[in-house]
Amino acid sequence: MNRPLFLCLVLMFASPGHAGERPLAIAAQGSFFVGGRDVHSDHLATVPTLNSKGTITIDQVYVHYQIPVSAKRRPPVTFIHGCCLTAKSWETTPDGRMGWDEYFLRKGFPVYLIDQASRGRSAANPIAINEVRDGAAAPDSLPQLFSEAHEAAWVTFRFGPDYPQPFPGLQFPIEAQNELWKQIVPDLAPSLPTPNPTVAGLTELSARLKGTVLVSHSQSGIYPFQAAQASRDGIAAIIALEPGACPAPDGDMAPYAGLPVLVVYGDYVEGSPRWGPRLKNCRAFVEAADKAGGKAELLVLPEIGIKGNSHLLMQDRNSLQIADILIDWIVKTAL
Amino acid sequence: MNRPLFLCLVLMFASPGHAGERPLAIAAQGSFFVGGRDVHSDHLATVPTLNSKGTITIDQVYVHYQIPVSAKRRPPVTFIHGCCLTAKSWETTPDGRMGWDEYFLRKGFPVYLIDQASRGRSAANPIAINEVRDGAAAPDSLPQLFSEAHEAAWVTFRFGPDYPQPFPGLQFPIEAQNELWKQIVPDLAPSLPTPNPTVAGLTELSARLKGTVLVSHSQSGIYPFQAAQASRDGIAAIIALEPGACPAPDGDMAPYAGLPVLVVYGDYVEGSPRWGPRLKNCRAFVEAADKAGGKAELLVLPEIGIKGNSHLLMQDRNSLQIADILIDWIVKTAL
Repeated sequence: MNRPLFLCLVLMFASPGHAGERPLAIAAQGSFFVGGRDVHSDHLATVPTLNSKGTITIDQVYVHYQIPVSAKRRPPVTFIHGCCLTAKSWETTPDGRMGWDEYFLRKGFPVYLIDQASRGRSAANPIAINEVRDGAAAPDSLPQLFSEAHEAAWVTFRFGPDYPQPFPGLQFPIEAQNELWKQIVPDLAPSLPTPNPTVAGLTELSARLKGTVLVSHSQSGIYPFQAAQASRDGIAAIIALEPGACPAPDGDMAPYAGLPVLVVYGDYVEGSPRWGPRLKNCRAFVEAADKAGGKAELLVLPEIGIKGNSHLLMQDRNSLQIADILIDWIVKTAL
Repeated sequence: MNRPLFLCLVLMFASPGHAGERPLAIAAQGSFFVGGRDVHSDHLATVPTLNSKGTITIDQVYVHYQIPVSAKRRPPVTFIHGCCLTAKSWETTPDGRMGWDEYFLRKGFPVYLIDQASRGRSAANPIAINEVRDGAAAPDSLPQLFSEAHEAAWVTFRFGPDYPQPFPGLQFPIEAQNELWKQIVPDLAPSLPTPNPTVAGLTELSARLKGTVLVSHSQSGIYPFQAAQASRDGIAAIIALEPGACPAPDGDMAPYAGLPVLVVYGDYVEGSPRWGPRLKNCRAFVEAADKAGGKAELLVLPEIGIKGNSHLLMQDRNSLQIADILIDWIVKTAL
């Protein structure tokens, strides 16, 4: 780096104050795909004027990245969104505050955002749907699409016991809930193979990044563990935010030996028929991994006095406080 | 802006050389949605364990933006991708060069990227598909999904007369074609209402930006004109890159009076049964709009000596040369 540029960056980053008020200095940004395979079909279109035969590429994973100028001492962080959502989850919050994508950048981390396979900018496969419309297959061969309703999401995301009743002390900005509902997209995951094609994408991406922290959320919680089972190459650590599932505690712990793992849950979990058992299972996994030479930790936020967090930790009012906890953990364990 | 920061930015942007080698100074970035409406259904899921009843939000348009520090004398530019693609179209090219999203930023423009309604991060509507799977509707009520095959795209995008034969002098980097194929996603546009819900999103976005240049590509070519028909509020200019359709030349030209419009086509158009008639119609529209007090122009690149451009002007090898032409036009006509 030349000297004027260096001085310049020192000037830009030296003064204290709210980070959001200072310009971001980005060394590089862009997007690419990992994974993908070609399939052939005669059912690519059902509009008579459009071509229906040929080859398309599916199962690839879209990746967008930004690398800050000050990134040299921080590992790249890869954010993997959850059910029915896209990488938008990590960007500007529903009430207009800075997302984790920008906050981690401002803290010096290269940031990688993916859209899960078959969702967002990662192409879904239209063939099974078109085959039914063309009369070449029965309706029960249609893929299982799922969109989370506002009313159901209210309970799933632990905004409250029943829609539209909030929990007392809830940190999610429910006055901006309509902006969250716009983030929800149809999810094809129930019809995708196991492991989800996203997992192969994470394995490829990790090898390419040569040491990334994989940060999952909810549905994607198991994916980084499955990626580590396939290969530990390039996986520096795993942070599982409110995972829908942890690896089975009585399973093989060898893939996680020596791997820093942090599992995080928010508030109102014990009373939730959906999340209570998941936390219990993850607690058992963390104990088993740790016993087998792992470096796994469980963080239940209310247990350290941080209360009111919903399932959407990255969008709650105290989202930057949670981010700081993750950053401290990364610096302490994964550098 | 404080003095150290100002000096700093002068240092960063003053020296000549390839723009990609210097850091980007971003004043603000983030994402939000425009548009959207709530619909209720009993068919939001077909997996028995998942909730199928309630409200979802559809027709919203995802918008991502970046504003450079040096933006004060440049209008915001809104890029609207074409058929079967997403905003990825405008980012890093298939062969890894800088996309227009970053190039326009480096030239001082605030850049807004959208995913069309029902595509990418803008939620599609799963209800019609789930109704068929649930036996509540007939297969012919399925939406008309369309994915462009590699072989068909080769001709549609004018890489050559027939797959895999390229035109002589082609500017598209066909050695990287596999990375383009990964950009293609299923397109629901044939089943969406007219105008496409994206148009209402553009009207809302333009009013919010108070003077944006709407840059369309291909399928989306008609959308900015339809947005201008609804309201000229906030539309500073329209650039239509290889539009699939221009407004009818014998239609009402009043919505475009005094509006700077630039229609751009690449090479190999005359011999294309698909694109030849479209260019002819757009030429007639530009003449009609200009005669009616418009400021419309048509630019056919080979007519000014720029040869070999495919339908994907923003990904061709000379993409930054094309960008410079657009930037010169914006500065000349829309400031």
